[in-house]
Amino acid sequence: MVQLFNNVNEEVYRAYVFWSAVLVGKMLIMSILTGLQRFRKKAFVNPEDIATMPKLKLKFDDPDVERVRRAHRNDLENILPYFVIAFFYILTNPDVWIATNIFRAVAAARILHTLVYAVVVIPQPARAIAFFVPFVASLYMTVMTVTFFL
Amino acid sequence: MVQLFNNVNEEVYRAYVFWSAVLVGKMLIMSILTGLQRFRKKAFVNPEDIATMPKLKLKFDDPDVERVRRAHRNDLENILPYFVIAFFYILTNPDVWIATNIFRAVAAARILHTLVYAVVVIPQPARAIAFFVPFVASLYMTVMTVTFFL
Amino acid sequence: MVQLFNNVNEEVYRAYVFWSAVLVGKMLIMSILTGLQRFRKKAFVNPEDIATMPKLKLKFDDPDVERVRRAHRNDLENILPYFVIAFFYILTNPDVWIATNIFRAVAAARILHTLVYAVVVIPQPARAIAFFVPFVASLYMTVMTVTFFL
Repeated sequence: MVQLFNNVNEEVYRAYVFWSAVLVGKMLIMSILTGLQRFRKKAFVNPEDIATMPKLKLKFDDPDVERVRRAHRNDLENILPYFVIAFFYILTNPDVWIATNIFRAVAAARILHTLVYAVVVIPQPARAIAFFVPFVASLYMTVMTVTFFL
Repeated sequence: MVQLFNNVNEEVYRAYVFWSAVLVGKMLIMSILTGLQRFRKKAFVNPEDIATMPKLKLKFDDPDVERVRRAHRNDLENILPYFVIAFFYILTNPDVWIATNIFRAVAAARILHTLVYAVVVIPQPARAIAFFVPFVASLYMTVMTVTFFL
Repeated sequence: MVQLFNNVNEEVYRAYVFWSAVLVGKMLIMSILTGLQRFRKKAFVNPEDIATMPKLKLKFDDPDVERVRRAHRNDLENILPYFVIAFFYILTNPDVWIATNIFRAVAAARILHTLVYAVVVIPQPARAIAFFVPFVASLYMTVMTVTFFL
C-alpha cells in the first residue's frame, strides 16, 4: 500500500470532495446557460442546428453568448487545474482548518465569478477579486505540494 | 488511512478506469483530427507554421477545422469534469450495476458525439442526444456525491 | 479496501505528484501571461474591463494575446487529460524507471512548448517536437491502461 494516503485527513478529504462536486455542478450549468443564450439570441454555429429554421443564419459573435463562453472557458482554465492541485495538496498533511477553508473559499469565489461575469455583470473589480481568490489559493497549494514532494 | 476508500468497489473502480482511459484516448485523437483538417484545408494560424510555404496565408475561420475544434472544446467542457465527478461518485458506495453502466453509457455517448459532430455530421437531434446522456449522468453523479458528503 | 492501490509504487507516485504540480503551476502562469499581454496591447474583451478607460475599444483579435491563449488552450487539451491518464497508468504497476522518466519528460516538454509557442516563438519543428513528446507519452499510457484493465 502506498504510504502517501496515510497523510490524508478524512475531514479535509470530505471537504475537498463535497466542494469540488459543487463546482462540477456549477460547471455543468454553464452549458445550460450557453444553450439558453443561443436560443434567446438565435445565435447558432452549426448548420445542422438551424436546419429546421431556414430563415436563420449562423451567428458566431453574439456578445451575450460569447460572454457565457468566456466565463465557461475561464472555469476550464482555473477550476480543472484546481481539482488536481487540491487533490495533491491533501496528500501533504495540511492544516485541517486552512485546507477546509481554502476549499470553501474557492468554491464560493468561483460561483461568484460566474455570477458577476455571465449572469448579472457587476462592474470591476468584482470579477478580478472572484478570479484572484481561487488563483492565489491554487498557487499556494502548488507551492505547498512542490516543496512537500521535492 | 482515510476511511473513504473503504467504500470503493473494485468492479466499479476498474470500469471507471477502463472507460475513462478509452475517453482519454478519444480526446487525444481530436488533436490528430484537427491537424489533419488544418493540412487538408491549408488552414494554419501561426506564422511559424507556414514559414516554409510563402504562398499560404493564415486562415482562422475554416469551417471544417472549426467544427473539429468545437467538438474538442465540448470534450474539455464535459469529459474532463466527468472524470472528476465519476471519481467522487465511486466513493459514495454506488450500486455496482448502475455505476458500471453509467461509465459504459457515457463513454459510448461521447464517442458517438464526436462521430456525429466532427466526423460524419449527422442531422440533429443526434448530437443533442449524444450530448445529454453524459450530461444527465454527470448531473446525477453530482447530486449523489453532494448529498452523500453533505 | 480496493485492491488496485496495492500496485502503486511510492517512488512512481511521488514523481507523478511532483511533476504534475509543476505543470499545474505552469498552467496557472498562462493566465498571468494572457493578462500581461492584454494590458500591454490594450486588448480587452469585456466592456466592464475598460469602463474607466473611455478611449479604449474592445479588441478581440490581437495576435500576441491570441498566441498566448492558443498555448493555454493547448495546455487544457493535453495537460489535463495527461493528469488523468498518468494517474491511471500508475495503477498498472509500471516499470519505475519508465514511469518516472515519462513524468519528467512530459513536464519538461510542456514547459518547453509554452516557451517556444508563447514566450519567445522559436521556428518549427520546435513546437511540434514539444507537442508530440507528451502526446505520444499519453497515447502510450492510454494503451497500457486499457490493456491492463481490459
